[in-house]
Amino acid sequence: MNIGIIGDGQLGWMTIFENRKLNYKFFVLGNNPEAPASRISDRFFRYEDYKQFFETVDTVVVEFEHIPDFIFELLERYPNFNALKLKRSRIEEKTFLKSKGYPVVNFCYSYGYQLKEKIKDFALPVIIKAEKLGYDGKGQYFIEDLSQIQNILDNHSLEEGFIIEEFINFKHEVSVIGVRDFDGNKRLYPISFNYHEDGILLYNYAPFVDNKSVSQIVYSLLDDLEIVGVLAVEFFIKQDDTPIINEFAPRPHNTGHYTMDGSYTSQFENLIRAVSRLPLGSTESKLPTGMVNILGKSLEDFNVNEILKIEGTQFYWYGKEKKSRRKMGHVNIVDTDVSNLRRKIQSVLECVYSKNFSKV
Amino acid sequence: MNIGIIGDGQLGWMTIFENRKLNYKFFVLGNNPEAPASRISDRFFRYEDYKQFFETVDTVVVEFEHIPDFIFELLERYPNFNALKLKRSRIEEKTFLKSKGYPVVNFCYSYGYQLKEKIKDFALPVIIKAEKLGYDGKGQYFIEDLSQIQNILDNHSLEEGFIIEEFINFKHEVSVIGVRDFDGNKRLYPISFNYHEDGILLYNYAPFVDNKSVSQIVYSLLDDLEIVGVLAVEFFIKQDDTPIINEFAPRPHNTGHYTMDGSYTSQFENLIRAVSRLPLGSTESKLPTGMVNILGKSLEDFNVNEILKIEGTQFYWYGKEKKSRRKMGHVNIVDTDVSNLRRKIQSVLECVYSKNFSKV
Repeated sequence: MNIGIIGDGQLGWMTIFENRKLNYKFFVLGNNPEAPASRISDRFFRYEDYKQFFETVDTVVVEFEHIPDFIFELLERYPNFNALKLKRSRIEEKTFLKSKGYPVVNFCYSYGYQLKEKIKDFALPVIIKAEKLGYDGKGQYFIEDLSQIQNILDNHSLEEGFIIEEFINFKHEVSVIGVRDFDGNKRLYPISFNYHEDGILLYNYAPFVDNKSVSQIVYSLLDDLEIVGVLAVEFFIKQDDTPIINEFAPRPHNTGHYTMDGSYTSQFENLIRAVSRLPLGSTESKLPTGMVNILGKSLEDFNVNEILKIEGTQFYWYGKEKKSRRKMGHVNIVDTDVSNLRRKIQSVLECVYSKNFSKV
Repeated sequence: MNIGIIGDGQLGWMTIFENRKLNYKFFVLGNNPEAPASRISDRFFRYEDYKQFFETVDTVVVEFEHIPDFIFELLERYPNFNALKLKRSRIEEKTFLKSKGYPVVNFCYSYGYQLKEKIKDFALPVIIKAEKLGYDGKGQYFIEDLSQIQNILDNHSLEEGFIIEEFINFKHEVSVIGVRDFDGNKRLYPISFNYHEDGILLYNYAPFVDNKSVSQIVYSLLDDLEIVGVLAVEFFIKQDDTPIINEFAPRPHNTGHYTMDGSYTSQFENLIRAVSRLPLGSTESKLPTGMVNILGKSLEDFNVNEILKIEGTQFYWYGKEKKSRRKMGHVNIVDTDVSNLRRKIQSVLECVYSKNFSKV
């Protein structure tokens, strides 16, 4: 079977090597022939050669949602078109969730020129997000004082769309990866605890405390979005343990990288099983597992051997050019015991970032 | 780092995709550009281009021991030369083991023309094996009656070397994969129970009942053979639980395929960690795990979906041309409980071979 992957980054890279066992071929459509997925693909196509790419592949998966318009139109016959379409605008995503009765924060839509007026309906602080897709905290502003709005207007046009969101003083962030096949069979990975720093995931681990509302939401969302493949849903858990959906992603997700070492079947394999009509694999955890992201570091900036000497660690290095806060690699950590696991996550963080992480 | 792999089969194939996470490059020296390892390598070299291969790679691992002479000479500067040298002749392998005090069966060397004479020193039955490397039962004869010797002489020359071996009525077969690094650090995977049919492994699982003598032998052999990488040692366990070494292989081994899903670190990853001077990974099992070999079948001969519907199965398909009894793929099975695991091994065998395997 010929699997097409839109995007040439680490998600495609892991999708390829996690599924080599199935003896499929993997074709990558992207910008850079030296990018992680391109390098290990059976063939790399540049975006301008997209017609040839679509003639070659039997099905298509995506590694992100920022898909150029001329390609997006061609995705209608492949899985997850509707979910991808919703993800093209934050306001459409949130409006859809609200209309279906899912718990989301209070929000409203505003053009840039309306921001100063519309913000008056909210108690401060609020979060203001540019409508068109950003990720890893890009295009997001935390507003505690009305004077900060000028900063947004300096960076964006007055005609640009924004979402103003109520700020939730949440207890913690969690996520769940769900998987669904063409017949509507569904499975959920366990809930993971996620720790973000400045909008980027720093570490996570699973299984975290079960939360029935969270699981019910993801089961239901898999159907409402007609997912075939994987869906990641990020939640804020409020002080009273009720969940609020932060956002979803109809693709493999950074908070599911732990599944490669922790689960019977990784998120990358279940994605490919689903789109190639193989039975879904077990989403249970073999053992508690965590992940630490390596952000903005080159191999010279820390000691890999020190990390690998910690029992149960696995090192993933994407081979990308170093940029500030860029995801360069990650470490998975498996342990029989969650307390030990958290101590090891702390040790790995300290190896990578050379500072104290005593609160893990 | 540029890793060279001699051999283009499934062992090289798994070595490559199990280590993509490390972002090394993998170069394959072999016969067939369409073979499993060739297809997913960063570059394939034919044997006649061996000079270019050796100029490209930083280190070399092998996926078998039948290495052509003109290449074998060049391996002296790479790990495991001594062990590979011993493996070029069954008699040297056995003589080495005996001289070091390891338990081996009674055996003697014989040219073809001496067979009828030398066999008189043994009680029947005996095993007669051609000296030069065979594998999976090739070049091996089970002799219950002296008249069968004529059959051997019809297939071989009178000048060819053979080993005559005492036949052991063993209780079962087990193996252990050991791993050793450049500093002499050693780790052992748990003992696996192996079931062969006509000289080819049909299924195995681990951890099997611990046996201290077995572990001590493998620890000691890792040093005596100066292994850097992995060593597989196959044993016969006698009725009184004492072990006899059947043979060793200084490379990843079919009885260690379960480590890809069962262990913290697979045999393929620990091989590459060792030769690239990374710390060895944990060889412990996350959960009990078994493997079923798919021999001499094409994808049309059985129902993959039926196998994948059994919880905890993973399907590996090598993409080779079907031949009688050829290793075409394997299934790994993980379960929390060994009894359940054995039942699932039985179910997988029944899916693949459409016959009853009630004795697993």
